[in-house]
Amino acid sequence: MEYKIASHIAEMKPSAIREIFKVLADPKVIALSAGEPDAASLPKEEMAEIGAEIFANEAAAALQYGMTEGYQPLRDLTKKRMREKYNIGTDDDELIITTGGQQTISLFTQTMIDKGDTIICEGPSFIGALNAFRSFGANLKSVPMDDEGMRMDKLEEVLATTERVKFIYVIPTFQNPTGRTMSLERRRQLLELAKKYDVLILEDNPYFELRYEGEPVPTIKSMDTEGRVVYAGSYSKVLSPGMRIGYCIANKEIINRMVVCKQVSDVHTNLYFQMLVAKYLERFDLDAHIADMCKLHKEKRDAMLNACEKYFDKRVTYTHPNGGLFIWCELPEGYDSFKLCQLITEKKVACVPGNAFSVDESAVCNGFRMNFSKPSLEQIETACARIGEAMQEFLK
Amino acid sequence: MEYKIASHIAEMKPSAIREIFKVLADPKVIALSAGEPDAASLPKEEMAEIGAEIFANEAAAALQYGMTEGYQPLRDLTKKRMREKYNIGTDDDELIITTGGQQTISLFTQTMIDKGDTIICEGPSFIGALNAFRSFGANLKSVPMDDEGMRMDKLEEVLATTERVKFIYVIPTFQNPTGRTMSLERRRQLLELAKKYDVLILEDNPYFELRYEGEPVPTIKSMDTEGRVVYAGSYSKVLSPGMRIGYCIANKEIINRMVVCKQVSDVHTNLYFQMLVAKYLERFDLDAHIADMCKLHKEKRDAMLNACEKYFDKRVTYTHPNGGLFIWCELPEGYDSFKLCQLITEKKVACVPGNAFSVDESAVCNGFRMNFSKPSLEQIETACARIGEAMQEFLK
Repeated sequence: MEYKIASHIAEMKPSAIREIFKVLADPKVIALSAGEPDAASLPKEEMAEIGAEIFANEAAAALQYGMTEGYQPLRDLTKKRMREKYNIGTDDDELIITTGGQQTISLFTQTMIDKGDTIICEGPSFIGALNAFRSFGANLKSVPMDDEGMRMDKLEEVLATTERVKFIYVIPTFQNPTGRTMSLERRRQLLELAKKYDVLILEDNPYFELRYEGEPVPTIKSMDTEGRVVYAGSYSKVLSPGMRIGYCIANKEIINRMVVCKQVSDVHTNLYFQMLVAKYLERFDLDAHIADMCKLHKEKRDAMLNACEKYFDKRVTYTHPNGGLFIWCELPEGYDSFKLCQLITEKKVACVPGNAFSVDESAVCNGFRMNFSKPSLEQIETACARIGEAMQEFLK
Repeated sequence: MEYKIASHIAEMKPSAIREIFKVLADPKVIALSAGEPDAASLPKEEMAEIGAEIFANEAAAALQYGMTEGYQPLRDLTKKRMREKYNIGTDDDELIITTGGQQTISLFTQTMIDKGDTIICEGPSFIGALNAFRSFGANLKSVPMDDEGMRMDKLEEVLATTERVKFIYVIPTFQNPTGRTMSLERRRQLLELAKKYDVLILEDNPYFELRYEGEPVPTIKSMDTEGRVVYAGSYSKVLSPGMRIGYCIANKEIINRMVVCKQVSDVHTNLYFQMLVAKYLERFDLDAHIADMCKLHKEKRDAMLNACEKYFDKRVTYTHPNGGLFIWCELPEGYDSFKLCQLITEKKVACVPGNAFSVDESAVCNGFRMNFSKPSLEQIETACARIGEAMQEFLK
């Protein structure tokens, strides 16, 4: 039979990058396409120990239904840590536990967006967020970036000329896909422009604690005095992506609406792992664990930067991120990175072409994303050598 | 600041039953308001054993990202069991693992509904589904039930006079909140009417394996030859609600769209528990476990039916469900069960008034829902005695 799919869902086309991702089934392919921390860096023994205790002492509670807002001790511990350590959250704010940072994006979008409303984002930006916005029928406008992040002159142009803008979506620290960090000055300007045009800001900040050098930059949320910033946090990059635990800190009125949406989305987040993370925070030193993770990831970032220097064509540029998981590489203007990535795929390496991160996926993009956290040091060297070869063939 | 919430989200009012639920914080209150199986009946030791093994042998895989569609062994085992045991699923169908049955409802609704489309449901129906439908801007029409389930004459009236109906939502077996089971004849008629008016059916079937007596009735999905029925299944009521693992079986085209929506909703369901359930299915006898659960739950159902008989006013009627978790009680026509439930609350018992399950929550409803799986046998006796007292005062 013929199905009448919702109009804005029907418009969402299967992404061209799916074809590139198919090659990942081949175990010989080196994946620089991932977005997850090094598996060796996750606190497996500690989690196993706590997990066994929960089954031994609190199994009945852990296996039954929980509160939609989240497991209270985890909410309290997360609130306390984010407020004391990062000045995130006010007395007018509330915190909800979500099924990963992705669910914060989805619930907030559902809460705010009427079909046809506009969301402004960085160009390029995180594909999972762009598709979440599309899945609720939002219009997307992207604003170009430079080394300091989203360009504020361009942002104001868009704000001044676009109707029904509901919010601006940014990943200010170690951005996905570029690895760039928005400067403090830009963050202040962003908040000012959001005030001037009365729109909200969704600050998606899953990577910020994976900093390998340089001084931390205050979050936009920490500068927010009037409830204009909605903060998406996550335990995915510092404890485990697969357990799916994130959180959102925002004004109570927004959180209350998001709770209603979460109730009907999945009732609540897996309760056993909420308990596990709460006990981890009580018993272990998350900051020390993150410091260990940073050491390991810094080594990999350095290895990739060195390999880029060694193997890449000199006409190619790439970012030097102070943290996070990604390096963004740009071919000279006019070259199509999608074609290069196809060539790279033939050499058994997977990268993500930049058009996947674009509001207009069909436009030619000269950038592509490389992940350095998942591959081994050896794989990083091999992969970059092969990418260098592909560049030689492609740019000649 | 003032927030411009999405219009159909802004219209969703906090439910009046929240007030009644607040009393649950008082440990002296006996909750007949729950919707979960008896905690003693969950296979805690078996799950603990498998859980420890996963941490010992496959922690890295379990803690990293997984496929949006679900953990392949769990998908395969679930498909096989549902097809071989219940004739559910065809070669044109596919299965996706969801974060509980609630997510199947939410993803399917997002996939199908343009704002203003209509969904037809039973009156009364599951509040979590009604609110999911509302959260995507659907119009709701309810069709009254009798002891055989949704009335087909009334359904055809609605179908014949309503524009833009996308699907019919039913919980045909041990319905929430009534405990009623739709007869085989009605199921056939429902499928015929869906064909005649070219609409889909969402068959929500979380309770059907908790049958305490009587012959099983074939699912609507098992009679579906053309991909018209979307089947929402769940492990919540037979293994654990808190782990949030459900599944959807439907035509590939629909599942493919739902995968896109799930990707942007929560990326994937908690991977550790997907692995845990897969290993449970491989190693233990789920059917034997369910048979044990049924013994325990039958005893509680019988206890509640006996207590109703003993304590309730003779003008009050109640359903005699062959399974599931709920008994539905009706006051004589015209009485407002919401007021009775408030009185019951004062006597330290929590029931859910019927208007919570209505498309129009403000309309007077004479029914209310009682759960028999969570309270102890002693609590069932005490609670029903108190409800009986409240009825005496209320109906005099």
